[in-house]
Amino acid sequence: MNTKIVLKKHPLGNVSVDDFNLVTSPIDSLEDHQVLVQGNWLSLDPYVKGRISQNKSYANNVAIGEIITGESIGTVIQSNSKKFCPGDMVIGMTGWQTHAVMKDTKLQALPDTDIPITYYLGAAGMPGITAWIGVNRICKPNPSNVFLVNAATGAVGSIAGQLAKKLGCHVIGIASTPEKCQYAKEKLGFDQCISHQAPNFKGELANLLSKGVDCFFDNVGGDLFDAVLPHINIHGSIAICGLIGENDFQHSHPIQLREILNKRLQLKAFIAYDYLNEWKPIQSELISQIKDTNLIYRESITNGIENAPKAFTEMLNGKNFGKTLIKLF
Amino acid sequence: MNTKIVLKKHPLGNVSVDDFNLVTSPIDSLEDHQVLVQGNWLSLDPYVKGRISQNKSYANNVAIGEIITGESIGTVIQSNSKKFCPGDMVIGMTGWQTHAVMKDTKLQALPDTDIPITYYLGAAGMPGITAWIGVNRICKPNPSNVFLVNAATGAVGSIAGQLAKKLGCHVIGIASTPEKCQYAKEKLGFDQCISHQAPNFKGELANLLSKGVDCFFDNVGGDLFDAVLPHINIHGSIAICGLIGENDFQHSHPIQLREILNKRLQLKAFIAYDYLNEWKPIQSELISQIKDTNLIYRESITNGIENAPKAFTEMLNGKNFGKTLIKLF
Repeated sequence: MNTKIVLKKHPLGNVSVDDFNLVTSPIDSLEDHQVLVQGNWLSLDPYVKGRISQNKSYANNVAIGEIITGESIGTVIQSNSKKFCPGDMVIGMTGWQTHAVMKDTKLQALPDTDIPITYYLGAAGMPGITAWIGVNRICKPNPSNVFLVNAATGAVGSIAGQLAKKLGCHVIGIASTPEKCQYAKEKLGFDQCISHQAPNFKGELANLLSKGVDCFFDNVGGDLFDAVLPHINIHGSIAICGLIGENDFQHSHPIQLREILNKRLQLKAFIAYDYLNEWKPIQSELISQIKDTNLIYRESITNGIENAPKAFTEMLNGKNFGKTLIKLF
Repeated sequence: MNTKIVLKKHPLGNVSVDDFNLVTSPIDSLEDHQVLVQGNWLSLDPYVKGRISQNKSYANNVAIGEIITGESIGTVIQSNSKKFCPGDMVIGMTGWQTHAVMKDTKLQALPDTDIPITYYLGAAGMPGITAWIGVNRICKPNPSNVFLVNAATGAVGSIAGQLAKKLGCHVIGIASTPEKCQYAKEKLGFDQCISHQAPNFKGELANLLSKGVDCFFDNVGGDLFDAVLPHINIHGSIAICGLIGENDFQHSHPIQLREILNKRLQLKAFIAYDYLNEWKPIQSELISQIKDTNLIYRESITNGIENAPKAFTEMLNGKNFGKTLIKLF
């Protein structure tokens, strides 16, 4: 039997566990070129907030009753494909379920590796590549630049900040809690970090950003975007790859063209999938840095597909710490 | 005696001739390294709308009683400088006045040239260079791209569209009147053009932009930005260099981050003065194209400094046609 999480209703305002349903059903039999994958690790990613909303996004939304979008690492346990044999480890967009029947072209073999395989869902996968692109293709900071990243200890933010630090930038993080900030400074090597739950957040932020911000790596949007925008320096750039900080699903966040012109800013949005032809070399670079312990990476693991909705909503509220994963089998 | 236009009050809403005062005063005597310039041609530029407002801009605002910002071409009639002799033609930011006492470092000699000298205030000057940078440094369109420019027959828009056309783009203009659109198509070589005064503007625009827009050269902002944004293609870019279309001075125009992310757009604001080290080669290229009649350029000339406020407000309302100049002497 397969256990999966489907959409019960489109969230209004904050995402709730009540927006999801757990469904158990028999596993479909395999057609030609299909394989059956038993999931080992499911990645929970912030972008899913956009997919389960009714708002237009850069991808199709999940409809009521449909399985929630997600990437996972699993083991082939049946194969009607010449590409995969039972026992092969694969990675693909299986959705939130324990067993996935997938066309072989939709899966990739997991390479032999001496980094933890889960890293292919994080530091060495889409989130790490997102961080790399934001730093090296969008912001392209100089060593003298001030680089600011929010969700600073998350899968994307933690890598982005470390990559900018290696380029010589002064790296400042924004995170939800003081504990995360301590981690960002002590373990990730950020120069400074501020908790956005601080009682006088805006005032403290202004102090911290007294030299302004040259590159703002924004994977949150919403109020944090508002708070940072006045501090962006002339000719600064803003890399936007996620908007989980938007207040609710009904209203997206307005910005002023005047602010953009006055400081001649560059605002560039991107997703990692726009750069597919660059993934291989980027991934190699990330893996090499991970092996040399030049990139520090942390995971937050919850057991069982049934706990995915709760772990997901907690992640959106900043209660995770590092990359959020569900251990399936 | 010097005659100048100073700011009487910061405009609220639309700019009115009542926001300006005409003042006559004796000409100051020259200090060391200063020259007296008698103006020949004064350039009226849309950016001045921002300067005379109270809103924060990319430059200092004009205070009440201060002379209005402006560039002009004039003749040196007295000199305390080794750099300039009486009779020399110069260009500089003299402001809206007939006679300017200027430090020699603030003026540039007008080169020997076989294009009309007024072109140095337009097609071969700041507006032309703005157009060139927006096309070649910000949008960087491919030959297959759809390129849209507003204020399409203005000093900036007319050059931008022609440059994009030379790159092979499908060029679409937005202008205030059908007459200007006809000119854009017949004289400037634009593929299509639409008047934003058309009764069913949004519907006609949607028809015209059925293939979307890859590069939007926006020198207007405001409602036109709103109207175009839904038609920008995925990975499209928007070059912003002016916001005279903002509704009034109290509210600038909000845009949605969600829209930017969904289509992974690039929004980049710029002013020509950010690229000063590139001016010389750009200017040479523009002049060469003007000589070869590869760039068509039109001027709208009014006589007398006393008519500058009226000509300026008319320009902001689209009643000019081409580059707006005041003939001084």
